[in-house]
Amino acid sequence: MSDIVYLNGEYVAAVDAKVSVLDRGFVFGDGVYEVIPVYNGHLFRMDYHLQRLNNSLDGIRIVNPLTDSQWCDILGTLVEHNGGGDQSIYLQVTRGVAPRDHCFPENTPATIFAMSHPMSEPSAELQAGIKTIVVEDIRWKLCNIKAIALLPNILLRQQAIDAQATEALMHRNGLLTEGSASNLFVIKDGVIATPPKSNLLLPGITRDLVVELCENHQLPCEQRDIQLKELDSADEVWVTSSTKEIVPVIEIDGRIIGNGSPGPVWQQLIALYREYKTRFREERFNDRT
Amino acid sequence: MSDIVYLNGEYVAAVDAKVSVLDRGFVFGDGVYEVIPVYNGHLFRMDYHLQRLNNSLDGIRIVNPLTDSQWCDILGTLVEHNGGGDQSIYLQVTRGVAPRDHCFPENTPATIFAMSHPMSEPSAELQAGIKTIVVEDIRWKLCNIKAIALLPNILLRQQAIDAQATEALMHRNGLLTEGSASNLFVIKDGVIATPPKSNLLLPGITRDLVVELCENHQLPCEQRDIQLKELDSADEVWVTSSTKEIVPVIEIDGRIIGNGSPGPVWQQLIALYREYKTRFREERFNDRT
Repeated sequence: MSDIVYLNGEYVAAVDAKVSVLDRGFVFGDGVYEVIPVYNGHLFRMDYHLQRLNNSLDGIRIVNPLTDSQWCDILGTLVEHNGGGDQSIYLQVTRGVAPRDHCFPENTPATIFAMSHPMSEPSAELQAGIKTIVVEDIRWKLCNIKAIALLPNILLRQQAIDAQATEALMHRNGLLTEGSASNLFVIKDGVIATPPKSNLLLPGITRDLVVELCENHQLPCEQRDIQLKELDSADEVWVTSSTKEIVPVIEIDGRIIGNGSPGPVWQQLIALYREYKTRFREERFNDRT
Repeated sequence: MSDIVYLNGEYVAAVDAKVSVLDRGFVFGDGVYEVIPVYNGHLFRMDYHLQRLNNSLDGIRIVNPLTDSQWCDILGTLVEHNGGGDQSIYLQVTRGVAPRDHCFPENTPATIFAMSHPMSEPSAELQAGIKTIVVEDIRWKLCNIKAIALLPNILLRQQAIDAQATEALMHRNGLLTEGSASNLFVIKDGVIATPPKSNLLLPGITRDLVVELCENHQLPCEQRDIQLKELDSADEVWVTSSTKEIVPVIEIDGRIIGNGSPGPVWQQLIALYREYKTRFREERFNDRT
């Protein structure tokens, strides 16, 4: 049985979903995307994802082709088509199909594509901690835009895979930015730090939730520049993403972090994160009944 | 009548040429491309384009799916399908179709796409000189790879268009790199200068031909770092690309270059360039008869 995807107004089998070779997504990487977790059929932190989608579209000057409520309807229907429950949604908007020319085409409708897949809780393997490598951040200077032009991220991630690691942690001129597909947290003496938002990193929804949980529970959390060398003395390091949540890093370039297992501050935060998710599930469940 | 394009082994009408939404070109910008001029049905500087294609594919770790002679056969047939004569070919190779995951898929054939269109000589308007703007080079750090992930280039080019200009000239930390879709030459006191090849700019085939023509005709040509501020005192500025050839820049950020018309060194080089093209046409024509 094939997944159902949404493409330009229609729900079709994934195998049948095709776009023109002249789609500017295909020839230019000219589009943006979001990944949204779904719990019990409900879109998690949807307001934030819609806000970021708008920011990304603004950043590359595509007019959002749908209203927020249209997005919710379309994605909700997609999730139902694919069996509800826990899923991860991927959605993508490109500047549409036009003769290949760098300048923006006129009167060209955006291409809208979304797919969703069943999603399990983050694996025990991830939760036991991952190995990482440190690489130079070679990306462009508008990393706050969630652009589909991810070639640099892919090359850096593959470099990590080739080194038997799971994620590449990036620095630009000695300052840490983020992971190739995650945000980064560095913990020292109980203080949780993450790089401040700027054009050099993605404003992660999970990153923000971690910061919010810290604030709500009076845990010291700083958004500040973090030197690459601070990794050497860190007690804990984490990476975060919407689908992998909070993942402890136990090794960087072959060097063990802390005692080589998930640290106590991570234990505290992941418990708060799960509690938040459980409350979301229950409240949404109550909404429904 | 629709153009014919080549897609994964078949020649099809452009309107029928479609790729999966899971093609890594569409979801990641994970591919490379070339643009090759064709004169009298013959591929211009093809050895150089094939070499650069190989370098780009190596740079993103895709195995070239075709031999050089297969490329020539396929593109030659494509050009014939579209009526021969003078054309510009666009070809693109992506890492193929696979479930969306940053790390490289295994055993996945590359997607191969090529199209061609009739090409006229560069317009009188272009040859009369273009207006440009100067922008910060916000691209990634592997600009020597001719990657399809061109979103930064597109945004900068559009910025030029919006300023009633034709091209955006880029600098990184005060050093000129290239145009958003062209290489850059700066001429002062008869000396022709262009930035040296590095990971920060595309090794242009036309750029190299200009350097070669200078060498063959004892014109002083330097490949060296060029400061942004050298634009202020330049006698002439040009941009080059395979389809637009050598284009004089007559205005930068509203400031007139030289006397506001194509300069004498440009006149000299464009004559040499045309002579080279004419010889190519004639020799190839002789090959054929």
